[in-house]
Amino acid sequence: MPDHKTVRTPEPRNEPQKSSAPIRHEVVRDPRFAQLSDSDISYFTDLLGADGVLSDESELQRYNNDWMNKFHGASQLVLRPRNASDVSAILRYCNERMLAVVPQGGNTGLVGGSVPVFDEIVLSMQRMNKVLSFDPYSGIVIAESGVVLEQLNSYLEERGFVMPLDLGAKGSCHIGGNVSTNAGGLRYVRYGSLHGNVLGMEMVLADGRIVDNLSTLRKDNTGYDIKQLFIGAEGTLGVVTKLSVLAARKPKCQHVAVLGCSSYDHVLKTMQFARSELLEIVSALEFFDRPSLDLVLKHIPNTRDPLSSSFPFYMLIETSGANEEHDQEKLNRFLESAANEGLIEDGTVAQDTTQGHSLWQLRESIAESLSKEGTVYKYDISLPTRTMYDMVEKMRERLADKHAGVVGYGHLGDGNLHLNVHTPHFDPEVLALIEPYLFEQTALERGSVSAEHGMGLSKNVYMPLSKSVEMIDIMRQVKNMFDPKGILNPYKVLPPPHQPPPTEAQQK
Amino acid sequence: MPDHKTVRTPEPRNEPQKSSAPIRHEVVRDPRFAQLSDSDISYFTDLLGADGVLSDESELQRYNNDWMNKFHGASQLVLRPRNASDVSAILRYCNERMLAVVPQGGNTGLVGGSVPVFDEIVLSMQRMNKVLSFDPYSGIVIAESGVVLEQLNSYLEERGFVMPLDLGAKGSCHIGGNVSTNAGGLRYVRYGSLHGNVLGMEMVLADGRIVDNLSTLRKDNTGYDIKQLFIGAEGTLGVVTKLSVLAARKPKCQHVAVLGCSSYDHVLKTMQFARSELLEIVSALEFFDRPSLDLVLKHIPNTRDPLSSSFPFYMLIETSGANEEHDQEKLNRFLESAANEGLIEDGTVAQDTTQGHSLWQLRESIAESLSKEGTVYKYDISLPTRTMYDMVEKMRERLADKHAGVVGYGHLGDGNLHLNVHTPHFDPEVLALIEPYLFEQTALERGSVSAEHGMGLSKNVYMPLSKSVEMIDIMRQVKNMFDPKGILNPYKVLPPPHQPPPTEAQQK
Repeated sequence: MPDHKTVRTPEPRNEPQKSSAPIRHEVVRDPRFAQLSDSDISYFTDLLGADGVLSDESELQRYNNDWMNKFHGASQLVLRPRNASDVSAILRYCNERMLAVVPQGGNTGLVGGSVPVFDEIVLSMQRMNKVLSFDPYSGIVIAESGVVLEQLNSYLEERGFVMPLDLGAKGSCHIGGNVSTNAGGLRYVRYGSLHGNVLGMEMVLADGRIVDNLSTLRKDNTGYDIKQLFIGAEGTLGVVTKLSVLAARKPKCQHVAVLGCSSYDHVLKTMQFARSELLEIVSALEFFDRPSLDLVLKHIPNTRDPLSSSFPFYMLIETSGANEEHDQEKLNRFLESAANEGLIEDGTVAQDTTQGHSLWQLRESIAESLSKEGTVYKYDISLPTRTMYDMVEKMRERLADKHAGVVGYGHLGDGNLHLNVHTPHFDPEVLALIEPYLFEQTALERGSVSAEHGMGLSKNVYMPLSKSVEMIDIMRQVKNMFDPKGILNPYKVLPPPHQPPPTEAQQK
Repeated sequence: MPDHKTVRTPEPRNEPQKSSAPIRHEVVRDPRFAQLSDSDISYFTDLLGADGVLSDESELQRYNNDWMNKFHGASQLVLRPRNASDVSAILRYCNERMLAVVPQGGNTGLVGGSVPVFDEIVLSMQRMNKVLSFDPYSGIVIAESGVVLEQLNSYLEERGFVMPLDLGAKGSCHIGGNVSTNAGGLRYVRYGSLHGNVLGMEMVLADGRIVDNLSTLRKDNTGYDIKQLFIGAEGTLGVVTKLSVLAARKPKCQHVAVLGCSSYDHVLKTMQFARSELLEIVSALEFFDRPSLDLVLKHIPNTRDPLSSSFPFYMLIETSGANEEHDQEKLNRFLESAANEGLIEDGTVAQDTTQGHSLWQLRESIAESLSKEGTVYKYDISLPTRTMYDMVEKMRERLADKHAGVVGYGHLGDGNLHLNVHTPHFDPEVLALIEPYLFEQTALERGSVSAEHGMGLSKNVYMPLSKSVEMIDIMRQVKNMFDPKGILNPYKVLPPPHQPPPTEAQQK
């Protein structure tokens, strides 16, 4: 196993790495970490039973590689605890032995946060998958962190509730992973952040201490809200073993509309108008540009142009409410006025659930259709909503004489842009034109270089562009407080100590 | 000035303290803190100008005493910084000199968190009262922490938005204080926690470091969410100087109804039914018992019984939405069905804003009417909603042969009970029957001994009843990390190190 690796962002998808790709930053295996020994494996087998320990090369494959096949680890051991006591015993042992550990949920992350970098032990939460309790009066559900999001949502739907979180990976991702990456997703505009919806947590610290912060109360002002630090910590501060979450009442009716706009300015005005007219029933406010839609229509079977002519911008608006008739009326009035005001050029409203799914598919399949174009350079940034699309146009201009496509889509209502570039094959010159330029431009606008995907291994080096020196110092102190030996998910989240982010100036 | 004091919870209101009151815990002035000298005052006068330094006895009065006149400090100096640089210079100096500091907003807290205990310097935020910017596309407002909540809300209403927070003290409380106590209030059931709505913060640490975490983005996953620790830290970790908050769209119409129920079970069923039928338009779900209403009708001028006969329980339901007609129809249907199902006995819907205010007044005046009965013993606990009212009944039984009234009201939708006891005069036997019994019973139900008021000086000793040993250890580490010399708001929030909470067993 090599003891250092270079991390490229993004690496080519489904292609062997090319040595000509510019080096983003180099990661060296921390020599303080011990190598796994036979006696370690015996200890874990005694603790967890044969079912709890995986070490065959074939079995390790799916734990060592992320679902995009972009990040590749070389772990020799996967541990599958059954409960917090198991996690505690594992971590206490690893902390004493200086064995590094990567906590892993559904392994659906996009920034390399959930796969080993070198030979870290994978701590898979997949056997901790029970829903523990639900209180219909408060809507509070308690579950182990390895429950799959979609399963938890189905459990809640049967009881008249929904998870305040929905995302493309719902069929595989674990709620512990969602919380550890502070996932955003499609319902964010309605239900807001996990910082507001996660009410309690049980977590195991690096030294094996089990911390009970599993409050099941909507309000509890008895001291510092410690669990908040673990929301978005990507498993670097401790391992989340149980969660209590405030579920939302399941809406009785939903409507989906796709609208065509002639400019981004009209998209903005339509958003403002929707927020004021539809107010409390808005549950999604998404947008995509025509090049995004073209990719979907080209690559995804059974999709069709939603409107009779082509427009530079599309919005998807979803409403969720208690009264079918009322919501229909509100939506119709809104569409009529928006058309009369010249904000939208055309629009379609789904007449049933199937049509609703088809409209959603146009937005949700963009990522998949991109991947069929060759190499994708994926970015997930937050910017002031008003000027958000300028970044796409700047990038298009910058790459004008390259054979590259630039598309922009995302969570309009949250100021969250997914800017993606695609080329037929990996092109280091294109990458060098995008990065670090894009991150620097984002920083100039006081944006965020990672809106919802997290830092992982691929964005951490750019943290200084979104966070001040004082903030990063404090984060290092926090990391040191919870995990003084640094065994939990090493090399991730925090930027390498003495390595400033690559700059555009250096590239020239 | 005495160098120790005993803290009683609650102390008698508007009455001299009686030595017969049982001692809850004793606080001793930390001898490590320096005494204020003339040269200190000169330094601060040079820094802030004469306007920024108050030291006349008459001027100090309102800073040394809380608005309930329950907590009394003996500070000799109030500093009034104009900006974060002033705060930084003050704290750096105090940290070096070992001068203790109490950050103070509107001084409307209920647990003694905002007044000095001994001679701590008061750092008043009242001159840092500017709204700095507002973005109508995102709804994000940036303001200094000394802005009064009501003023910020008015500023937003003029722009078609509202603060996601509303509470009785809005005319005096500062938003910095709201965030530092993690205030809950009346809109919580609709807009949720400040942990979800506060997007960024500028804070000054004890050593004078200014930390810029003033994100104005709905989504920013670049590292640990440090500002979350300062939400609810009651000024013990640093001084919040600026905030960015996600405002909500201002509703176009509101309706208020007061309903009479024959049992708490019917209150619960009506709440569930309201949540399912009214869903997204519910903006308040409050309740009060008949004894609460009787006090209001007795003491508050121009109030009248809302319904033609008397019921043991009342609910106040408010809706906020985008369409007058739709909301009216939803509310009427809900009331009709609830009456047909026998869940409610009677009800009234406000026909205009004035009537709406009158109905709200019945709920909002309970605290004031209680204070006219003599001594009030105030509690603010979180409990499982289903069994919440049992605590009121237990307490009534326990105090049956005392001359004491017991009332229960609060934020039904949040599982937050305001349990209040009143006696004509302060009665130490009554207090001894309430505490620590009530806190212990709350702990047995995994409730919280402080739902929204915070710990301050009067609840901190009971923290071990709501938080585990590991959690309290972590909190101490966090305190030590941000404020190693302990100069910020000493004696508050964290429990005294070697003093377990008083127990019911000890009382016997």
